Amino acid sequence: MRPLKRIGVLTGGGDCPGLSALVLGIARPAVSHFGATVIGILGGFEGLVEGKMRELPAKEVMGSAISGGAMLGTSDKGDPFHFPIQTQQGIDILDCSEDAVRNCRDWNLDALIAIGGDGTMHIVDKFTDLGLNLIGVPKTIDNDLAGTDASFGHDSAVRIATDAIDRIQTTESVHYTVLVVEVMGRYAGWIALGAGLAGGADAILIPEIPFKWEKVCEHVVRRGKQGSRSSVICVSEGARPAGGEIVEKENEVGSSDPSPRGGIGDLVGRRIAEMTGLDTRVTVLGQLQRGGDPTAFDRILANRFGAKAVELASQEQSGHMVSLRGTEVVAVPVREATQKIRTVPLDSQLVFAARAVGTCFGE
Amino acid sequence: MRPLKRIGVLTGGGDCPGLSALVLGIARPAVSHFGATVIGILGGFEGLVEGKMRELPAKEVMGSAISGGAMLGTSDKGDPFHFPIQTQQGIDILDCSEDAVRNCRDWNLDALIAIGGDGTMHIVDKFTDLGLNLIGVPKTIDNDLAGTDASFGHDSAVRIATDAIDRIQTTESVHYTVLVVEVMGRYAGWIALGAGLAGGADAILIPEIPFKWEKVCEHVVRRGKQGSRSSVICVSEGARPAGGEIVEKENEVGSSDPSPRGGIGDLVGRRIAEMTGLDTRVTVLGQLQRGGDPTAFDRILANRFGAKAVELASQEQSGHMVSLRGTEVVAVPVREATQKIRTVPLDSQLVFAARAVGTCFGE
Amino acid sequence: MRPLKRIGVLTGGGDCPGLSALVLGIARPAVSHFGATVIGILGGFEGLVEGKMRELPAKEVMGSAISGGAMLGTSDKGDPFHFPIQTQQGIDILDCSEDAVRNCRDWNLDALIAIGGDGTMHIVDKFTDLGLNLIGVPKTIDNDLAGTDASFGHDSAVRIATDAIDRIQTTESVHYTVLVVEVMGRYAGWIALGAGLAGGADAILIPEIPFKWEKVCEHVVRRGKQGSRSSVICVSEGARPAGGEIVEKENEVGSSDPSPRGGIGDLVGRRIAEMTGLDTRVTVLGQLQRGGDPTAFDRILANRFGAKAVELASQEQSGHMVSLRGTEVVAVPVREATQKIRTVPLDSQLVFAARAVGTCFGE
Amino acid sequence: MRPLKRIGVLTGGGDCPGLSALVLGIARPAVSHFGATVIGILGGFEGLVEGKMRELPAKEVMGSAISGGAMLGTSDKGDPFHFPIQTQQGIDILDCSEDAVRNCRDWNLDALIAIGGDGTMHIVDKFTDLGLNLIGVPKTIDNDLAGTDASFGHDSAVRIATDAIDRIQTTESVHYTVLVVEVMGRYAGWIALGAGLAGGADAILIPEIPFKWEKVCEHVVRRGKQGSRSSVICVSEGARPAGGEIVEKENEVGSSDPSPRGGIGDLVGRRIAEMTGLDTRVTVLGQLQRGGDPTAFDRILANRFGAKAVELASQEQSGHMVSLRGTEVVAVPVREATQKIRTVPLDSQLVFAARAVGTCFGE
Repeated sequence: MRPLKRIGVLTGGGDCPGLSALVLGIARPAVSHFGATVIGILGGFEGLVEGKMRELPAKEVMGSAISGGAMLGTSDKGDPFHFPIQTQQGIDILDCSEDAVRNCRDWNLDALIAIGGDGTMHIVDKFTDLGLNLIGVPKTIDNDLAGTDASFGHDSAVRIATDAIDRIQTTESVHYTVLVVEVMGRYAGWIALGAGLAGGADAILIPEIPFKWEKVCEHVVRRGKQGSRSSVICVSEGARPAGGEIVEKENEVGSSDPSPRGGIGDLVGRRIAEMTGLDTRVTVLGQLQRGGDPTAFDRILANRFGAKAVELASQEQSGHMVSLRGTEVVAVPVREATQKIRTVPLDSQLVFAARAVGTCFGE
Repeated sequence: MRPLKRIGVLTGGGDCPGLSALVLGIARPAVSHFGATVIGILGGFEGLVEGKMRELPAKEVMGSAISGGAMLGTSDKGDPFHFPIQTQQGIDILDCSEDAVRNCRDWNLDALIAIGGDGTMHIVDKFTDLGLNLIGVPKTIDNDLAGTDASFGHDSAVRIATDAIDRIQTTESVHYTVLVVEVMGRYAGWIALGAGLAGGADAILIPEIPFKWEKVCEHVVRRGKQGSRSSVICVSEGARPAGGEIVEKENEVGSSDPSPRGGIGDLVGRRIAEMTGLDTRVTVLGQLQRGGDPTAFDRILANRFGAKAVELASQEQSGHMVSLRGTEVVAVPVREATQKIRTVPLDSQLVFAARAVGTCFGE
Repeated sequence: MRPLKRIGVLTGGGDCPGLSALVLGIARPAVSHFGATVIGILGGFEGLVEGKMRELPAKEVMGSAISGGAMLGTSDKGDPFHFPIQTQQGIDILDCSEDAVRNCRDWNLDALIAIGGDGTMHIVDKFTDLGLNLIGVPKTIDNDLAGTDASFGHDSAVRIATDAIDRIQTTESVHYTVLVVEVMGRYAGWIALGAGLAGGADAILIPEIPFKWEKVCEHVVRRGKQGSRSSVICVSEGARPAGGEIVEKENEVGSSDPSPRGGIGDLVGRRIAEMTGLDTRVTVLGQLQRGGDPTAFDRILANRFGAKAVELASQEQSGHMVSLRGTEVVAVPVREATQKIRTVPLDSQLVFAARAVGTCFGE
Repeated sequence: MRPLKRIGVLTGGGDCPGLSALVLGIARPAVSHFGATVIGILGGFEGLVEGKMRELPAKEVMGSAISGGAMLGTSDKGDPFHFPIQTQQGIDILDCSEDAVRNCRDWNLDALIAIGGDGTMHIVDKFTDLGLNLIGVPKTIDNDLAGTDASFGHDSAVRIATDAIDRIQTTESVHYTVLVVEVMGRYAGWIALGAGLAGGADAILIPEIPFKWEKVCEHVVRRGKQGSRSSVICVSEGARPAGGEIVEKENEVGSSDPSPRGGIGDLVGRRIAEMTGLDTRVTVLGQLQRGGDPTAFDRILANRFGAKAVELASQEQSGHMVSLRGTEVVAVPVREATQKIRTVPLDSQLVFAARAVGTCFGE
């Protein structure tokens, strides 16, 4: 077992509710169990390449669960192996992994724990070959990371989406209304499926099941005729109509995420209004799902993932990530997480449960 | 004082958080203080014209504060004095006020309490001349009703918008991001101003203060340069740029509210991205603000408004509405509520407080 | 496969957040998948013996996720095999199981689904021998039911307890304060452990680990000396000091739950104040944990448990209960749930995670 | 108008939800409008006497509404005019006001803003005679401060108490249960009255109306006979039975707040159980009400109070406190706040509204 004197922590990938709770979940056992010093890498792998780090004082790290932890900042851009460098000629993409390794040495890091999704785990995998003691912790709002049953942040995002469906449903319009809620999920429909089930949505449109406009329209029209006050359609941002129809995307100037206009939620709202003449309303949760306090479930997971990650670091199990399997947190090779995306299986019990209550998937 | 045996209750105008709590706030004192029977008119004034009513059993009415009350349904269409009637030639607009009066007589209503905004109060006013004992209770999410310091539902909507700003702000992107949140408020900016202050938004765009694109862009660019992680812009749906520029509105087929596309929130997000090259994200709360449990403030108000409205009904103060003045609930003629919209005064203390903390209004 | 025309549902055991969501989770697939009629048994097995039942109309059952479902009422008293009957001589305990069976026949129930904890599963087991088609669904706030990884209601209770710890911690007293929070858990410490981890409690006292007063006092005194503003002690209602010391219980007149006075939370607060001279405050959550909306996690579980239970009923798998195993909902014999209580294993990862952050268990 | 270069801020009295939001509400306009430096006095007037202060960097002060502000710490002990000094003979009470004045000079404070209740305002008043430029901002959870219609923190506490009543009510026991909730309010019943109305409590016991055991018992027994599932009794911690009966208080060793045992909530629960034989459950919210995020209402108030307080400081209106009068924030002499406690008038509209719905006050 390696004595852990100095442990680095970085967060890669997109934002996520309660990232600082997860940093806390790692830092606390590092400090109280190993007496280690925790070094925060600022801004993900970008910060590792550029040497932007700072020691997190024990006092800061051991603070309360809500105000504690640290805002390290995250970035979904900085792959050290393909790193954008500003030159006089423009931007060059260079391999800067040696800078990252050198910075780990300069800061005397005995281990580095990287929190993130598949992109992050891919980088973890490559660094392992370079001799770093690098452990992964899975974090994806969308829950689309293979190799673990659950990842940090997902339960919190489902809660926020469920809250939204709850609130939207308690309206008293005398006219039948179609209420569209767009939630996150580019490649996997876990959030839409979970929140749709929890909130009792009448239709759930997910990337895994291309939908037909006619089916969705028939469903909401029939519900209106049967006397419902409203129908709720919960749509993943990555849901798409069957048949290759393309969602228009405009106005991408200067924005890495062109969702403001022409998102699928807007499109579903407009198209249903056109095809059925019904009153439709659209809510786009967007960034909202990335913020807020984490749920108790996610915070407990943060503690367990953190304790396990520090244990793995002390055992020099480089190239592994912590993973929830059933009720146990175990170690799996990071490669399990990088070779496919964990989408919703069409025969999953969640889909079965949704079908059992008459939910329309648009097929 | 008139003995109150049978009291009708109807809700007009748009949806609002906790309408059933307000029905409960009226029904409880009617039942327990006067031993009255409460008759719910279903679907607002439309239901009054068409005789859609039902007795609300005491047991239903006296239920708990959260599950009690009644979903009467509301409608923003049915003015009995200009009522749309489907004929073979199409839709005729007729004066059906006599049908409404006759239905009140047929159901032996000693009083009718109408919950709603300025449209509703306008109708209350006209019916008073026809001899109905008709009392108003103010309810506007936007808080734009004159004649009262506060109306039911507004505090709840501000809370939801504030929650959204809170959640959006707790993100950890390493890149500076502009976060746009579109909230309700067609003619008055109370929700944007309240939630913007409470949540600490960096810019607040309201209908009362036409904004300049340059000013807003300068503000967010400067904040980015000063090292902020993000800037939050809270926009009323009725906010408009100065100089008569028109917000495109498309795709109105079959929808009474064409907000899905081309809403001001989307436009602000796109335009700022174009003009500054910054990363922008847009959240459109929409219908979300009309649902959810009412706050304690609104529920207390519901009880006080209800108790006062029943008292006024027993005193046959027809043509009056209940009103909060300072800390007291009083009666004011409904005409006070119908002659102007209560917009945000530019010299109000709220605007002063916002300016004092450096909030940009885009001027 | 048995055609399911009429399915009875009853809830046994204590109250639980969102029981009606679970009834909804059963009733929806029964109606939409099998076209069955759902019969609610009112007041648990007591209602089954006494024939208190009513058909739940499809409209009521298929309502929205938040207002839908049904309040059937629960009872922790009515074991039909040992049923208290009021006679002239007093109360006799009789075997009334035949009444229950007859009522099932009279109401033409093809299956009966019983929601509850170990007491309920024990009764399910006995009825199976009498030829009823009886399926169990696990529900315990305390999560102490064997045979399943998770039961309905627990996640919601942990959330409420975590909320309480969060709120209590955000105080600003200049004096160091010891904050005691008593949560549920008579025989198993899952709630205290989960909420304590999630909220970052400094000491967690659970029934599985008898605590020593000296250890707890030392811990909080040391934290005070190290400059902490406060220490939070999260106590299961069933936690006990080591060495057989008995918690005084007084004043049981007329109360099935004498917790008002002399609960362990109060005792911990008083004893620490006496032994250390520190300022202590006590919060007793009590019944609070049994109410409120269920979390998204519990609501999804309700849908999955419900869909599986109806499937098992159609397969006449009498004597089985639905169970979460890892990520799958499966069927297990109810006997697995009745032969032991699922307490916290001392070597569990949760305990390890808590120790890793320096949490005191009082040993 | 005095140029404000350096403004001190301190908080006196007990804890309160969102104190740091109020510090932020003062500091932001001070920084952005006057370019002032804000000095936080740590631990209330005790810190002022002992010179415990620190500059709050603009960056810290101008942070987001949720993470911003500052935890200055509060204390309800340190009256500089009667200050406890540890000597070899024990504790002497001395006038240390000169130390406080000298510390203000040493730190070059142009103004000092003191946030607190009546004790704090009393001290503000006395210091004014000594030549300090001292402005008050009202903050009481109990809302019992005279001179203002509302004080900071009260709306947040009412929300927490209302949440508790909501949750407690959604239980499904088949036996009729009496649910007692003890909330804050030593001398004034505003929280119990507000939360009781908002949550629909069936009985509200407040300090202003001494209650009779018989009346309360009759009320809950009658409700049980009429078929209610439960009755909720909301009790102020300062509520007392009529006739001078004394609530036993034991075990005060080392505790400034001996409420753990023998609080009025416990007593009400036990006594009702004894007198009626009904099942009773007690929840004691305690410290819970002092924590958590402030409501939007309180945060807006924080901004308005802060902006006004800084304005008053710049006008050297020493001896005044900011005050909400109707919809306006005005200045009133602090003496208005110190000469009486603002209790609930028995003829107030809130009491009328509660009586109108059949709420029992125990008389």
